[in-house]
Amino acid sequence: MSLGKSVPRVDAYEKVTGRAKYTGDLAPPNALIGKLLHATIANGRVAHIDTREAEAVPGVVKIVTCFDVPDIPFPTAGHPWSTDPAHQDPADRKLLNQRVRFYGDDIGAVIAENEIAAVRALRAVKVAYEEYPAVLTPEAAMQDGASLIHEGFPHNILKHTVIEDGNFEEAIKEEGLLRFEGVYETPIVQHCHLEPVISFAYMENRRIVVVSSTQIPHILRRIVGQALGISWGKVRIIKPYVGGGFGNKQDALYEPLNAFLTQQIGGRLVKLELSREEIFFGTRVRHAEKIYLTTYLRPNGRIVARKYKAYSNQGAYGSHGHSIAAKGTNAFRQLYQDEKARQAEIFTVYTNTATAGAMRGYGTPQAIFAIESHIEDIAAALNMDPLEFRFMNLMPVGFTDNFSKNVHYFDSFRQCVDKCKAYIHWDEKRDQYKNQTGPIRRGVGMSLFWYNTAVWPISIEVSSCRMVLNEDGSVQIQLGETEIGQGADTVFAQMTAETLGIPFEQVHVISTQDTDISPFGSGAYGSRQSYVGGMGINKTALLLKEKILRIASDYTRMPASNLAIIEGNIVLTSFHNKTLLSLGELAAETLYSAVQAEHITAESTLQAKSNAYSFGCAFAEVEVDIPLGKVKLLNLINAHDCGRLLNPQLAQAQVHGGMSMAIGFGLSEQFIYDEKTGKLLNGNLLDYKLPTIMDHPHLETGFVENYEPTSPYGNKALGEPPTVPGAPAIRNAVLHATGLGINRIPLTPHVLFPAFKEAGLL
Amino acid sequence: MSLGKSVPRVDAYEKVTGRAKYTGDLAPPNALIGKLLHATIANGRVAHIDTREAEAVPGVVKIVTCFDVPDIPFPTAGHPWSTDPAHQDPADRKLLNQRVRFYGDDIGAVIAENEIAAVRALRAVKVAYEEYPAVLTPEAAMQDGASLIHEGFPHNILKHTVIEDGNFEEAIKEEGLLRFEGVYETPIVQHCHLEPVISFAYMENRRIVVVSSTQIPHILRRIVGQALGISWGKVRIIKPYVGGGFGNKQDALYEPLNAFLTQQIGGRLVKLELSREEIFFGTRVRHAEKIYLTTYLRPNGRIVARKYKAYSNQGAYGSHGHSIAAKGTNAFRQLYQDEKARQAEIFTVYTNTATAGAMRGYGTPQAIFAIESHIEDIAAALNMDPLEFRFMNLMPVGFTDNFSKNVHYFDSFRQCVDKCKAYIHWDEKRDQYKNQTGPIRRGVGMSLFWYNTAVWPISIEVSSCRMVLNEDGSVQIQLGETEIGQGADTVFAQMTAETLGIPFEQVHVISTQDTDISPFGSGAYGSRQSYVGGMGINKTALLLKEKILRIASDYTRMPASNLAIIEGNIVLTSFHNKTLLSLGELAAETLYSAVQAEHITAESTLQAKSNAYSFGCAFAEVEVDIPLGKVKLLNLINAHDCGRLLNPQLAQAQVHGGMSMAIGFGLSEQFIYDEKTGKLLNGNLLDYKLPTIMDHPHLETGFVENYEPTSPYGNKALGEPPTVPGAPAIRNAVLHATGLGINRIPLTPHVLFPAFKEAGLL
Repeated sequence: MSLGKSVPRVDAYEKVTGRAKYTGDLAPPNALIGKLLHATIANGRVAHIDTREAEAVPGVVKIVTCFDVPDIPFPTAGHPWSTDPAHQDPADRKLLNQRVRFYGDDIGAVIAENEIAAVRALRAVKVAYEEYPAVLTPEAAMQDGASLIHEGFPHNILKHTVIEDGNFEEAIKEEGLLRFEGVYETPIVQHCHLEPVISFAYMENRRIVVVSSTQIPHILRRIVGQALGISWGKVRIIKPYVGGGFGNKQDALYEPLNAFLTQQIGGRLVKLELSREEIFFGTRVRHAEKIYLTTYLRPNGRIVARKYKAYSNQGAYGSHGHSIAAKGTNAFRQLYQDEKARQAEIFTVYTNTATAGAMRGYGTPQAIFAIESHIEDIAAALNMDPLEFRFMNLMPVGFTDNFSKNVHYFDSFRQCVDKCKAYIHWDEKRDQYKNQTGPIRRGVGMSLFWYNTAVWPISIEVSSCRMVLNEDGSVQIQLGETEIGQGADTVFAQMTAETLGIPFEQVHVISTQDTDISPFGSGAYGSRQSYVGGMGINKTALLLKEKILRIASDYTRMPASNLAIIEGNIVLTSFHNKTLLSLGELAAETLYSAVQAEHITAESTLQAKSNAYSFGCAFAEVEVDIPLGKVKLLNLINAHDCGRLLNPQLAQAQVHGGMSMAIGFGLSEQFIYDEKTGKLLNGNLLDYKLPTIMDHPHLETGFVENYEPTSPYGNKALGEPPTVPGAPAIRNAVLHATGLGINRIPLTPHVLFPAFKEAGLL
Repeated sequence: MSLGKSVPRVDAYEKVTGRAKYTGDLAPPNALIGKLLHATIANGRVAHIDTREAEAVPGVVKIVTCFDVPDIPFPTAGHPWSTDPAHQDPADRKLLNQRVRFYGDDIGAVIAENEIAAVRALRAVKVAYEEYPAVLTPEAAMQDGASLIHEGFPHNILKHTVIEDGNFEEAIKEEGLLRFEGVYETPIVQHCHLEPVISFAYMENRRIVVVSSTQIPHILRRIVGQALGISWGKVRIIKPYVGGGFGNKQDALYEPLNAFLTQQIGGRLVKLELSREEIFFGTRVRHAEKIYLTTYLRPNGRIVARKYKAYSNQGAYGSHGHSIAAKGTNAFRQLYQDEKARQAEIFTVYTNTATAGAMRGYGTPQAIFAIESHIEDIAAALNMDPLEFRFMNLMPVGFTDNFSKNVHYFDSFRQCVDKCKAYIHWDEKRDQYKNQTGPIRRGVGMSLFWYNTAVWPISIEVSSCRMVLNEDGSVQIQLGETEIGQGADTVFAQMTAETLGIPFEQVHVISTQDTDISPFGSGAYGSRQSYVGGMGINKTALLLKEKILRIASDYTRMPASNLAIIEGNIVLTSFHNKTLLSLGELAAETLYSAVQAEHITAESTLQAKSNAYSFGCAFAEVEVDIPLGKVKLLNLINAHDCGRLLNPQLAQAQVHGGMSMAIGFGLSEQFIYDEKTGKLLNGNLLDYKLPTIMDHPHLETGFVENYEPTSPYGNKALGEPPTVPGAPAIRNAVLHATGLGINRIPLTPHVLFPAFKEAGLL
């Protein structure tokens, strides 16, 4: 049995030897090159484009502009399609946009025989604009008189919702309540996946094929069809290995345009690869949020009512839109349980910044930063132990959410907290760092987090799977769920081996999704794959096993119910698990039978109608250099209850990666725009401060393995949660060290130095 | 409804525009190059190979010789595996052979960074041999004292069988019988497919992937596994478009060696492409046969008993071996029905010529040449009308074969003959050309042929199929049966459209087989694909339709039995076929259903336990230049009863191609060996006389469409039969023109001139 063990990744050998083929490796060397023409204003309209000089550049094959594309607005968010218009994502962009909505917006494209010709042509294009003032924040965008970025959205509000549990106004009338307020701000950050955004497209039998580094091949097919106004079956998406996505590739980025480009030149192959700089300003980012929290509680610490008001910066186009802020409100509404009432009000607002979309954590890093900073501030103000205060108000064991029907089965929070406390010597250090003075001070801080696995019932959760038995008893498995570097294929192989009863090495996962062939699955997002995909694998493996045992019953003359598959052999369970024949023998005899030949395969669709809470926490220790306004992270531990660990080493790697993102989110990463032009100023890997290995302490991981009752393999989300609690834990450690709760991340010297000065620490 | 119509090929656009990707187009430009070291003796043993100088050639990566390969003899014939050892093909060669069995045998291979380095290295290899006398014909090979080419086969007889129906010795005792004898010889010829033999191989996740121009991907996987001694599931075969095979690629040619080569260098990609010259001497050929026929008949023309004795030249290795000669005996035993008895004795004999394998017609062109020449000679000798004589003795309508259970349902022969007679003005010309003199004479001749579709019950007949429904109502189909240029994918799409009730354009055939993914099918051979593959498509399409209508019943609240699919719409059959919803709407609603989501697919394995006679004839008109010994073909018509025509234009193209092969077989093609060294003398496209367009008259085709009762689409074999009757028809036309029955093809001046001289015509 390999499940639960740290078996090596199925793709390790290919990736370590450099032999694994990514999209860029698969594009033929003579591919035509597509390059984008970007707007050089942040808000306005293209008045005219003169391409005459550009078309004369030798090697140019074709130039298309925003005046040439179909008049079809389409959505880009990587969600399964909904046939209910009320549940569809905003369709608010065209392949190229005459209406410019951010600095860098796509207004044209060049196809050339090589990159140099393409770049030369781009430089020769002349564009005339009609320019409007840029609005870069929700506050600015919502002001009266701000120019409307999209028609039909007054005050640039994409969506505004209010959810109230209980009667908030009534609840706060209770006498003797204390009131706390806080405003918390998170930055625009980006995924910074290793592999660029890249695709190539060509036509085959008058259908369009797009090979793309995407997390969502089946969804992408639908979007390409929509964007081009062609029947979806006329589109084929192929997804090779993906070198990182983190949500950016859970969007249709440039695949629809790539498909359009090949269509314009009779199906010749066009490669469209973005530079790192283009990825920064032109793909997707994490929504910056500004969150107002108000809490009413009794002097004993019991929270009676809270209010959450968030402004989420959508940027130029709709993408995943309001669902990001909405997921944050779920964290607000569930992590702590107010005794009487709570109210969540959220605004998602168009601005002239980069389009915000899905990013690992999907709105929870922002919400949890606000919630866990706020709760810490209250505990500090009340001089209560922050853990005791949290547990007093926490979602209790046994809690069931009305909407999702999620159940909080185990005392996961306390188990995770205990692991972290012990590791970081919490009690000793809380005490030791209590009354520091001087320029260098240390502190410990922590944060809980709320997360739920997969997206049901917000949208459908479907994973189809097909298994094919070979004549040697080995099995191929195909599913729509995608390997994007996270190790999905490896756990899929482990699950298949477990349920079928064959050795792990005998499972061959087809890693490339091809929408013509691969069973439908919505792809890598929502920390859904090992949960929902796992259910699909389980269902299909059981179907395959049933077929196998039925046939084995014919061969062995034993009742199928007395047979099982163990280590690739058909055994007689009613007699010491005696081996009757190998699965390979059975498969070969069956395939080549002159009586009843059969290629033994199984296929099924699994629809998940559950999801699962996946909780945990982070504890951080920091050293603050007050004169320099610098925070040095000394120690960070994340503890997770992600159910049964499918592969401990892969699980640890997932957590390490998430912790690293949390460090950047808390301490160094942010998009900085020129306020006048709306141009991104630090959109490159030198100026955008992604933490390097020098910024990482040892990253410690702790796991609590409560077997998840809703999953056939006992597992639940671990893909996204690790990104969530790190930043507030660091922020709270700084509070512990300095007495100052800083409400805006990243905690750079630019933020800390003035705060320290104002507080009199300098 | 597209079935029965000449819809354009689904691959037409790709192939006409040159965009279709063949194996050679898919190999990366930096592929390592594999080249073969061929023996320069025809019979003997490699004593020693010195590779030191060759290894020093810059760019050489690795050299392997016959001393380095696994000691595993393996079979190469493209038959489905049989788990019964008695039904397995001869396993008599290794990846490289120390025992040299023909001039050009594979004794080593070089892997180099480019072709020049590979060729230079080959030239620098020094080989020492122990040489034995070459035997080039069965007669020579069977002589006492001839050196044994394979151990364990006395007199070099691979196999010898005798089948007797009735009691031959008893039957010929009847008084007053006339006795006729003839000896007929056919040449070694080759397929001359356009695309060379080519493959490339690499390793992926420690499994071996071979991309090959093969007719039989699934079978090839098994053979590669056997040859390398590795588990079959560790091998993956991918088949792109194939540019012709005609049976040569129904063998494992160099794919096992290619797999071995990549294995020897850690999985780096090696391309192995044969030159035309290597294909000639080193791949597969049609078995040359020498057939002795003896017929006993009454003076009224009724045949009482016959004897058939054939020597089939197997060449150096077993390949398809005895099954070729065996298929010929079926033609002998069934086409004409002796009143009392018949005896067929066949020898398949190893020699030091090229290995004979499968070639379009599979033994029937040879047998039919003998049978139809012999019958014509007897009619001429008896001064009987050759058609009347044939019909007097022909397999009657209603005939049922004991072994195969094949039924001769229709009067196909007479219907085909009538078509041809009318076209060629048979009666007039038989009369007109009766008493010619002078140097230039004309004649008309004809030949019937016997053929049966697919290979059951000789071996299993299995075709699995999978269909995937898209959200727009279009469908992908996958099967193991291969498009090798013949138009299979197009008729597969037509069949799918027919059974599902959707437009032809809505069917997307996955043309590339990938053994990891494609449902198992044994591939392109035996004229089986549209027959057996068609059954598999029908079975799977019915399964898919049943699923669709069951779901449609839920959506429409109508009983499934009142629903049908017509032109891509779900209609209510009980009310004027009113459209209720489109298949696309149904598919999208189902895939994205929040209640019961399903990716609608279907998969099944079909095992055929029938085959079907596929009969017809050819009529030819020739002009013989007696002094030059030259035959000019003036007119040729083939008529076929291949059941219902699936696509008349494709059917016609199939027949044209087969007729062209028959012309070469009858008039110009043959392998010529140096008798002393055993070296092939004309193994190139200049010296090997493939007929060119200048050698072709207008090719006329006639079809008789008797709906085949055993097929769901009414069709049966048309792939191979067209090659069969042409050569004897031409030969019989020469007989009509000159009075001389020449019993050895091709009818070159080298054969005709001495024959004319001997007969006193010169």
